Amino acid sequence: MGDKGISRRGLIAAGAFGVAGGAALGVGGTALALDAERPDSGPEVGTATVPFYGEHQAGVETPPPAHGLFFALDLKKGTDADRFARIMRLLTDDAARLTQGRAPLADTEPELAELPSNLTVTFGFGPSLFAKLGREDAMPENFAGLPAYESIDRLEDRWSGGDLLVQVCADDLMAVAHAQRMLLKDSRSFLGVRWVQRGFRNSAGVVEPEKTQRNVMGQLDGSANPRPGSEEFRETVWAGGSGPFAGGTTLALRRIRVDLETWDKLDVGSKEVHVGRRLADGAPLTGGKESDDPDLEAKENGLEVISPNAHVRRSTAPDGRKIYRRAYNYDDGPTSEGTSETGLLFASYQADLEQFTVIQERLAESDLLNNYTTPVGSAVFAIPPGCEEGGWAGETLF
Amino acid sequence: MGDKGISRRGLIAAGAFGVAGGAALGVGGTALALDAERPDSGPEVGTATVPFYGEHQAGVETPPPAHGLFFALDLKKGTDADRFARIMRLLTDDAARLTQGRAPLADTEPELAELPSNLTVTFGFGPSLFAKLGREDAMPENFAGLPAYESIDRLEDRWSGGDLLVQVCADDLMAVAHAQRMLLKDSRSFLGVRWVQRGFRNSAGVVEPEKTQRNVMGQLDGSANPRPGSEEFRETVWAGGSGPFAGGTTLALRRIRVDLETWDKLDVGSKEVHVGRRLADGAPLTGGKESDDPDLEAKENGLEVISPNAHVRRSTAPDGRKIYRRAYNYDDGPTSEGTSETGLLFASYQADLEQFTVIQERLAESDLLNNYTTPVGSAVFAIPPGCEEGGWAGETLF
Repeated sequence: MGDKGISRRGLIAAGAFGVAGGAALGVGGTALALDAERPDSGPEVGTATVPFYGEHQAGVETPPPAHGLFFALDLKKGTDADRFARIMRLLTDDAARLTQGRAPLADTEPELAELPSNLTVTFGFGPSLFAKLGREDAMPENFAGLPAYESIDRLEDRWSGGDLLVQVCADDLMAVAHAQRMLLKDSRSFLGVRWVQRGFRNSAGVVEPEKTQRNVMGQLDGSANPRPGSEEFRETVWAGGSGPFAGGTTLALRRIRVDLETWDKLDVGSKEVHVGRRLADGAPLTGGKESDDPDLEAKENGLEVISPNAHVRRSTAPDGRKIYRRAYNYDDGPTSEGTSETGLLFASYQADLEQFTVIQERLAESDLLNNYTTPVGSAVFAIPPGCEEGGWAGETLF
Repeated sequence: MGDKGISRRGLIAAGAFGVAGGAALGVGGTALALDAERPDSGPEVGTATVPFYGEHQAGVETPPPAHGLFFALDLKKGTDADRFARIMRLLTDDAARLTQGRAPLADTEPELAELPSNLTVTFGFGPSLFAKLGREDAMPENFAGLPAYESIDRLEDRWSGGDLLVQVCADDLMAVAHAQRMLLKDSRSFLGVRWVQRGFRNSAGVVEPEKTQRNVMGQLDGSANPRPGSEEFRETVWAGGSGPFAGGTTLALRRIRVDLETWDKLDVGSKEVHVGRRLADGAPLTGGKESDDPDLEAKENGLEVISPNAHVRRSTAPDGRKIYRRAYNYDDGPTSEGTSETGLLFASYQADLEQFTVIQERLAESDLLNNYTTPVGSAVFAIPPGCEEGGWAGETLF
C-alpha cells in the first residue's frame, strides 16, 4: 500500500466493493486469486501506510482519513533552539516508524504500532516558536498571525495558539491514540501540552473516496477544493522558491462552533440561500453540478441568484486564489441541557497565509452563515517541507 | 445487509479480503458479478444495517463496531411513568428509523441519517429509574446496585449512575453524532444529560472480524468471551423465564482508568504474569492457544504456573458462570503534563447481574492488575428485551 501513485481509498473501494463493469471483471478475478494465495493477509485498512519521507510532509495532500487529532505543545522554560532541534529529530524518527507500522525506539507497547491504518504525522511551527527561539527572521512572509476578526471571533485560549503543532491522522483511533502517546512521551520533558482537538469525518468504506462528505451541518463540505494531485493543488498549497519553507505550506486551524439549534430552524430552501449551493448535491444555485463554479453574475428578475451574502460568494477571493480545506468535524456534546456542542475543525492549507486571510476577512465582513457559526479557537502554523530518510522536520530552519 | 443470519463483518471480510480457498472462489465470482450490475452502489460499511426489531435489543450480541457512545439521562422533575412511556415510544421509533438509515420524524438534517454504518441503539433502565417511577417491584433480581468495592473504587459522580442508558454504536462517528443529536432532541424536555462516555475499538477493516482486538494496555481483550451466536452466549447473556425482562439482559458499565505510565515500566514477562496470558497471542501461560481455557491447577517446581493473583485466575468464577464483555477503550488525554488519561469502558452483559458481582468481588479482593487500574465510574442498567414493529423498548414494564 506504500505506493504514492495508487489511491489507498481506491484500493479499498476496489477490494471491498468489487469492480464495476465487465471489462474490469478479469482484474477483479485476479485480485481474488491473489487473495486466495495469501489467506493470512490482514484487512487492508489496518496495514495501509502512507509514505513518510518525501518532498512534502504527509497529511496535507494525503486523502484525509476518518480521524484527525491536532495537538499544540509549548516549549518549557529552558528549551532552546539546540534542544528543540534534538527533539524534532526524535519526534521525526518516531513518526517515520509509527506511520510505517513499526514501533518507536522507546515503545513499550510495540504491538499497538502494527496497524497504522494510514497514519500520518505532520509537524508545524507557530509564530510564538520563532519568537521564543529568536528566529523571527526564518518565518514565512505574511505569517506573523491572523488579524482579529472582532465581528465574529469569540476566541478561547484553550483552543488557540501554540509553539509546535502535531497533526495525527489515521483511519483507526487505536493508531491515533498510540501515536499520540508515543510522541508525547518523547517530548514531555521539554514541551507542555497547550491544547488537544479531535476531529472526525466518515470512516473508511462509508463514502466513496472521490465523493465530498457532509459535515455536522449536513452540508457537503469542500466542494470548491483543489483536487489533490492536480496542478491547481500544487499552486494553491505548496510554497515555491528556495527558502527553508519551499515545499512546505501554512495551516490556519480554526475551531468553529456551529449553533445547530438555530441552524435547524431553517428550511432546506433557506439553508441553500445561506450557502449558495443545493443541499442535496452541492451544485451551485446557478445550476450545473457540484464541481462547476457558481455563476456569481447570474440574475433572475434583476436579483442575483446567489445572494450577495451567501457563503459561496463571500468565500470566493476576488483574485481567484484558493485555499485547501481538509475538513474535520468535532462533537464535544451534548451539554447538560441536551444541546449539541459541535462544529468544524476548519483546517485550511495554503502556500501563503494571505490566501486564507483575504477570504477570512471577506467572511468576517459578511456571510449569512455567521449567524450560526462562531470561531472559538484559532492558530496558525508554518508546515516545513518533508525530509529524506535520516533527516528531520525543521532541518531547513534550526 | 439486513439479514440476521449473515454476519456483517463476515460480508465485509468476504468482500474486502477475497475468499480464501479454491472451493469458495465461485461464490466470490458471483458476488463480483452482482456488484458489476449495480455500479452505483456505495461502500458497504456506510449502508450496512443491523436489524432493530426482534427478540433481543441489538447492540449486545451484535459484533461491536468501531465506536461506542454511552449516555445516561435522568428524569426531570414531573416526568412520571406515563410520560416516560411516551418518551420511550418516541425514542424507540427514532432508533428504529435511524438504525435502518431513515430519518426520524423530527429530523432537520435527514441527509445525515442515510449512512447508518451498522448503527445500533440500545436502551437500559437504572435502579434509580425504577425507584423514581415507584416500580421497584419490576426490577430484575440482584439488580439493586453494585456493592462498594472500597479496596479499588475511586468512583466519580460524573461517570456513575443514571436513570436511562442510551448506548449508540456504529462504525462511523457521523452516524453516532447524528443519532445522539436526534435522540437528545426528542428527550431533552423531560430528561437531562447525566454523563456521556465515548469509546472506541479498531475500525472496520483494521482487524479480521473473528480476531480479538488489543486494548490501550496492549492486551488482547475479551479472549474468554462466549461466542456470539453460541449456546453459551445465550445462557450467559439473555435472561430466561417469562417476566418483563425475559429476552433482556443486564449491563454493568465500569469506567476503568489505566495508569499507563506505571504499566509501561513492566517488561513483557511481568505483564504476562500479571494477566496470566501471553502478550503476543493471548494464549494462557499454561499453553495452547487463545481460545483454550487456562489450566489453573498446573504447577511447575511446586509453584502455580498461573500466579494466584493473576487476572485470568481471579476473573474466573468458581461456579464457571461467565460474563460477556463488549470492550471499548477511551482516551481523554493527554493531560497538560503530557501523560495519558485513558482506559477501558468495561461493558459487561449478563443475564443476572450476580454473574458480574461474583467475578468483580474476586477481582477487588486481589488482582495483580489492580496496581495499574482504577475504576472511576460505575453504573448498572437492566436492558429490556427487544420489541416488534410498532412496539417499544420497555413496553413489558411500563
